[in-house]
Amino acid sequence: VPNLFPALDVHEVIIESPDHGETMAGMTSGRLEQVLAAWRQRVLDLRGTHIRYVHIFKNHGVEAGASLEHSHSQLTGLPMVPHDVEEELAGALRYFAQKARCIYCDHVRDAGTRAVLNAEHHVAIAPPVPRFPFETWILPRRHASHFESEEPGALAGLACILGQTIRMIDQALRKPAYNLFVHTAPLDEGPLGHYHWHIEILPKLAKVGGFEWGTGIHINEKTPEQAAKALQGTLGESL
Amino acid sequence: VPNLFPALDVHEVIIESPDHGETMAGMTSGRLEQVLAAWRQRVLDLRGTHIRYVHIFKNHGVEAGASLEHSHSQLTGLPMVPHDVEEELAGALRYFAQKARCIYCDHVRDAGTRAVLNAEHHVAIAPPVPRFPFETWILPRRHASHFESEEPGALAGLACILGQTIRMIDQALRKPAYNLFVHTAPLDEGPLGHYHWHIEILPKLAKVGGFEWGTGIHINEKTPEQAAKALQGTLGESL
Repeated sequence: VPNLFPALDVHEVIIESPDHGETMAGMTSGRLEQVLAAWRQRVLDLRGTHIRYVHIFKNHGVEAGASLEHSHSQLTGLPMVPHDVEEELAGALRYFAQKARCIYCDHVRDAGTRAVLNAEHHVAIAPPVPRFPFETWILPRRHASHFESEEPGALAGLACILGQTIRMIDQALRKPAYNLFVHTAPLDEGPLGHYHWHIEILPKLAKVGGFEWGTGIHINEKTPEQAAKALQGTLGESL
Repeated sequence: VPNLFPALDVHEVIIESPDHGETMAGMTSGRLEQVLAAWRQRVLDLRGTHIRYVHIFKNHGVEAGASLEHSHSQLTGLPMVPHDVEEELAGALRYFAQKARCIYCDHVRDAGTRAVLNAEHHVAIAPPVPRFPFETWILPRRHASHFESEEPGALAGLACILGQTIRMIDQALRKPAYNLFVHTAPLDEGPLGHYHWHIEILPKLAKVGGFEWGTGIHINEKTPEQAAKALQGTLGESL
């Protein structure tokens, strides 16, 4: 039985640009790095409180649920670890128990034709079992369970691959609405060997219907290999 | 780790009316009874196959993912029990282990101000923890785990409350798009004491964003008591 809980304790809006019309796709790496640094700093500030998980997300475009036009992201502090993150943690732990390896490290290593972008410290990939067409994940190459454990100096590289990935999606899919969020280990856990923080980007290309809402299973007509290939086709420059 | 599986073995479309423009809200109870009888008959026909679960659903309106305008529902045969139904079964079993009662029987009994419609053999309620505003469930009063175990003679009453519920939603929310689906016990299970089939109706009033897709938690500004009251306000006739 699910739980009801009152309105969120912590809900912050990060205004990403002083320019009302600027979108994440058009931002310089320096500006994106500032956004990532703000996310990281706010998470660090919530350590040691009753908050068990900080969910950072972004809705871009009306179809993705954005209610404000000005480019922004949101940060919510939750008193528990949310359902979907619990499931990821449990699945990753089962994998680790069998293979003694982090499943996300294996995703990075085994991306093959699902690789979208390879940078020095990060990769963008089409995940092996995407819920949505063109779903894209960005992960650090080096194993790390917590987003906020990234060194401030590493955020420049992350900003670069994030901007590039958004521009590839924009170009391949004609500026779609999208949701973006960070999945990371719970705030009150120490470093975990089996979990690996990552960013998920979900372009909103189709409506979700009664099959998905009733089963939790997603119909996706596009294989991750096809999606990665289509995104790579848009690549004008390399990192 | 989720599984990939190939395209569905069984996918049937039930054309609900010979009239292209007729929607479920406008159908006579007799026609709706025929639709329900078709659902039931198709489920019974799939017994004894490798199909473990039959998911029956309906997408009404473009926002709900409908790709055809002509009123229709869909039936999919799955080789496994889908994730969300597994979760409901497991949650209901935990409740049963604690209380020795079916949680859905308790929902029927305890609806109180969440009751939307009371009929002789069925009720429509706002569930205690709705994911979406105005989410409405229809359940049989008598405990039954399997939709297809409903006697053909009971479908007339079900058709009546289903039609009335859809018309109340139509009137209160100005003909919204909606998803509707049946949750029922797996095809290959005998009668279960802890599970109770039901229909869920989800009006599509808002976009789902990066909070929901990243956490599995749904923000719902409307309490079920408020939703039931608003729906009841539309009630011109009683059953």
